Amino acid sequence: METNQLRGMIPPMITPLLDNNHLDLEGVDRLTEHLIAGGVHGIFLLGTTGEAQSLAYHLRYELVERVCARVAGRIPVLVGITDTSLEESVKLAYKAKECGATAVVAASPYYFAPSQPELVEYFTALANAVPLPLYLYNMPSHVKVMLEPSTVWALASHPNIIGLKDSSANMCYFQSLLHLLRDKENFSLYVGPEELTAECVMMGAAGAINGGANLFPKLYVDLYNAAARYDIETVHQLQQQVMTICSTIYTIGRYGSSYLKGVKCALSLLGICNDYISYPYQKFRDAEREKVRAALESVGAKNLIR
Amino acid sequence: METNQLRGMIPPMITPLLDNNHLDLEGVDRLTEHLIAGGVHGIFLLGTTGEAQSLAYHLRYELVERVCARVAGRIPVLVGITDTSLEESVKLAYKAKECGATAVVAASPYYFAPSQPELVEYFTALANAVPLPLYLYNMPSHVKVMLEPSTVWALASHPNIIGLKDSSANMCYFQSLLHLLRDKENFSLYVGPEELTAECVMMGAAGAINGGANLFPKLYVDLYNAAARYDIETVHQLQQQVMTICSTIYTIGRYGSSYLKGVKCALSLLGICNDYISYPYQKFRDAEREKVRAALESVGAKNLIR
Amino acid sequence: METNQLRGMIPPMITPLLDNNHLDLEGVDRLTEHLIAGGVHGIFLLGTTGEAQSLAYHLRYELVERVCARVAGRIPVLVGITDTSLEESVKLAYKAKECGATAVVAASPYYFAPSQPELVEYFTALANAVPLPLYLYNMPSHVKVMLEPSTVWALASHPNIIGLKDSSANMCYFQSLLHLLRDKENFSLYVGPEELTAECVMMGAAGAINGGANLFPKLYVDLYNAAARYDIETVHQLQQQVMTICSTIYTIGRYGSSYLKGVKCALSLLGICNDYISYPYQKFRDAEREKVRAALESVGAKNLIR
Amino acid sequence: METNQLRGMIPPMITPLLDNNHLDLEGVDRLTEHLIAGGVHGIFLLGTTGEAQSLAYHLRYELVERVCARVAGRIPVLVGITDTSLEESVKLAYKAKECGATAVVAASPYYFAPSQPELVEYFTALANAVPLPLYLYNMPSHVKVMLEPSTVWALASHPNIIGLKDSSANMCYFQSLLHLLRDKENFSLYVGPEELTAECVMMGAAGAINGGANLFPKLYVDLYNAAARYDIETVHQLQQQVMTICSTIYTIGRYGSSYLKGVKCALSLLGICNDYISYPYQKFRDAEREKVRAALESVGAKNLIR
Repeated sequence: METNQLRGMIPPMITPLLDNNHLDLEGVDRLTEHLIAGGVHGIFLLGTTGEAQSLAYHLRYELVERVCARVAGRIPVLVGITDTSLEESVKLAYKAKECGATAVVAASPYYFAPSQPELVEYFTALANAVPLPLYLYNMPSHVKVMLEPSTVWALASHPNIIGLKDSSANMCYFQSLLHLLRDKENFSLYVGPEELTAECVMMGAAGAINGGANLFPKLYVDLYNAAARYDIETVHQLQQQVMTICSTIYTIGRYGSSYLKGVKCALSLLGICNDYISYPYQKFRDAEREKVRAALESVGAKNLIR
Repeated sequence: METNQLRGMIPPMITPLLDNNHLDLEGVDRLTEHLIAGGVHGIFLLGTTGEAQSLAYHLRYELVERVCARVAGRIPVLVGITDTSLEESVKLAYKAKECGATAVVAASPYYFAPSQPELVEYFTALANAVPLPLYLYNMPSHVKVMLEPSTVWALASHPNIIGLKDSSANMCYFQSLLHLLRDKENFSLYVGPEELTAECVMMGAAGAINGGANLFPKLYVDLYNAAARYDIETVHQLQQQVMTICSTIYTIGRYGSSYLKGVKCALSLLGICNDYISYPYQKFRDAEREKVRAALESVGAKNLIR
Repeated sequence: METNQLRGMIPPMITPLLDNNHLDLEGVDRLTEHLIAGGVHGIFLLGTTGEAQSLAYHLRYELVERVCARVAGRIPVLVGITDTSLEESVKLAYKAKECGATAVVAASPYYFAPSQPELVEYFTALANAVPLPLYLYNMPSHVKVMLEPSTVWALASHPNIIGLKDSSANMCYFQSLLHLLRDKENFSLYVGPEELTAECVMMGAAGAINGGANLFPKLYVDLYNAAARYDIETVHQLQQQVMTICSTIYTIGRYGSSYLKGVKCALSLLGICNDYISYPYQKFRDAEREKVRAALESVGAKNLIR
Repeated sequence: METNQLRGMIPPMITPLLDNNHLDLEGVDRLTEHLIAGGVHGIFLLGTTGEAQSLAYHLRYELVERVCARVAGRIPVLVGITDTSLEESVKLAYKAKECGATAVVAASPYYFAPSQPELVEYFTALANAVPLPLYLYNMPSHVKVMLEPSTVWALASHPNIIGLKDSSANMCYFQSLLHLLRDKENFSLYVGPEELTAECVMMGAAGAINGGANLFPKLYVDLYNAAARYDIETVHQLQQQVMTICSTIYTIGRYGSSYLKGVKCALSLLGICNDYISYPYQKFRDAEREKVRAALESVGAKNLIR
């Protein structure tokens, strides 16, 4: 399989932690197996949902090592190397290569807000320097800049840049990319927000990178598959289930961190891994945990709660 | 037909002008007939594409009068009453009622940026005061505030509020509304950006309010119809045509006004109406006009150019 | 006195209302006299604090008429003509001229977000069309666009554009304008936020347009005068009083409307005028009113409360 | 001298580089001596102007070591430890302590956008963990969140948090902090943008952290001193010089990176250090370099150019 043809549901794996300095290694293994058992088409480590930026570097390296060893080639592993320092991105990419990962993924540097020409220069330098194929990652809410369609167009002809994940939720942007890149057979588009997986795949996306697939991988794989075969009745039905998850498990707590806290808390309730969250966030306290439990029951997962 | 069941393609009509103080009355008539001949399911006057806020009040009144008289009940007419002054919105709604319009449409007041509870109070007062059914209009790029899902939910139970047009292009938001309001049979959702019509309608939207339908009403009606019957092959084919229009006719010129200038210029080239644009904008000069001509030719409309 | 040399404290007058359709005419007169008695150097009608955009047009016209008649030439009257329709701005400017106003003030049109070249064209057209000298008004939080220094520079050479009020609170911007326009003797800069009056005037501003001057005109006039004569000890002392007002009277209530509600409520408690607020806002209920009363007492205005 | 009483001009030192992986060590030494010779009251390493986030970690450590050794206690050295990972911030703080630095400085984590309560928890944990006094750094344009006054108020009572640098340019915010913290004798406020040094110091700030002081330390020290002694005539004169620098040297090039590129290029022309810039930026090419040379001449620094 060529990496540039990766299609399907690729969960952005959360990072199981014991505390700010230690991985929950058993949780990492259990979650990896949980995802593979659910039929996912790949795993994406160290993305936004993986709290990459919040982790000390040694944890990032350990995670890549552990998951790649566990997966052992069964499915592709993508590794997020997003950093403000190009050198640190490249080092992590070498580590990923050494561990057997399939490709790397990078958003724009996120302290400065580069202009579009600067982004072309940056990603060209990065693609030249990393030893694995590179996916772009459009994440304007966190990095402050869009990868404008003309920028993506310029980068798509680089032989080592093979696709883009879009988490903007701006579907005019995504449709522009689908249209602009329609003849680039070796460049694939993936959608981040799970609310949009069905429509994006029906309209031409290669796959989806959905946080909820950490919890219920089979459901998200089924949604991808239904959309990919244009089975709209099934899509409508599964979309309701996904939207119910989005509107319950992710909406406990008052801030932007509710989604991440909800996913980690739910995974803990499902007995898969610890729910510690790195600074600047904190895991849910008991009151919120009980609400997540109730939310899990409301989405029909009562029997899965440990 | 009940207005709250309006389905289909409803163009946001541009406002043909001779200058800042005079309608192009013959253009208004020709455009109205052009739209009806294209099979549109309704007409929306005085929206963003209609430059409502840029027009002196007497022009807004004259436009409603002229179009309603010309349509003469053949299809529904929706009238935008968005204003910063509630009183001026209500006055225009009475004019619309008097002329025979079907419903009115209002975005948030757009000078102050009200909080969500203030928006609930505002739209409740507006819905109570207007003599026609009211559609909400979510347009955050222009009015600075989103109508949050919980706000829409609160307003959707008002008997005189019958739907919402969303121009945010944020499809997570739109999916949230589709999910939240799935059991509200008398509340309909419409999508603004034409890039998103296909996917929105396939996922459950009642219709679309697309600026490009001013130019090629039949194409946009066909797109709506294909999506409504889940005919994905046809959707893919027509989507390419719409995306080609979006990426050519709307992208001449350097600023956010390119879309509006492009549509008006193209309508002028098609012999339908004058391309004067109200302040703060200006119509395209000759160089840009030639580019629009070339763009029209590239989308296969050469034989339509007068 | 030439209008382009207007210096000092010019309150942006609130608009006393009985309800959404009627001015509180006696309140208008009392407030006008209150300001003049406080020694203000001018009055600015129909600004943001004046709720201009929320008022039906007939109220805007009545207010200009009433205040100009009452002032009767004792001090300059500036009239806000900010509108999304250039024609409506011009009409109001003619009304202002007819009533004897001194100058008009306009922010950018605020529905569309024009580019900087479009703003130059717009304000040039407006300055050409109005029968009174024009002040620019930079208010990005409400109109979405900045009047960039290069735009102001271009407009400052128009013979009918004589100054700018900046409400951005971005002092790098204001310092850029002071520096860029340092040799334009007939172009004056005014600051909006009262927190910044002292420093702006000491650094070269011609005056200030502070909402709090509705309440305590003498205090704000004194602050301006102390800053204008570089009396830093007095500045520091009066600044504390102004900051105490800002951090008490304006911070009751949870939303962006707290400032306006606080000022109107306090004026009502001081017996000067009614506190009705136009949609989309609402006046404070009793609980908040009691807090404003306590805030007035805390700033030493207990004996003024009626 | 206690660190919490640091007053004066503290340049945010640029980081002299040979390439993406090597410091310009001789440039580091020359720049350090240049600043001390100019009379600065402290040096701030690894801030925004120091490109901290763009540097590989080993370079950050080497820089702290080199500068602290060179300064050798002559003036205080502050070290930026801003990071998205709390653990990496703490490690760098220990390195700073070991090298003899005086204090550390941290902005909010900048990938996620924490809520205000999460910021209180984060900075409390950080202040507890670092072995040196901590200054907060408000930099919303780069980290996406403001440190709201109430958040600063809560943190100001932590015994290890001794001040805040504000780079927001929002002077209403700065005045709010001055007012709110007026009785906190052990908490100091510093201003970032050099355009605002004069007014901030006259209104009560303890000092300024101005990028231009890398180039002309004595000028910026003089400006601070004039403001601190309320010598307004001198302030006005020096302010013009600073504004001329801001409007020439920093405005070559088309993007947000113009300031940094201009400062580094000018330092290179002055013979102080190499002008290499880390990704995602690039140093100026020859055409821009000539413009910087002309700008230096225009500000009277011709004789300093090597």
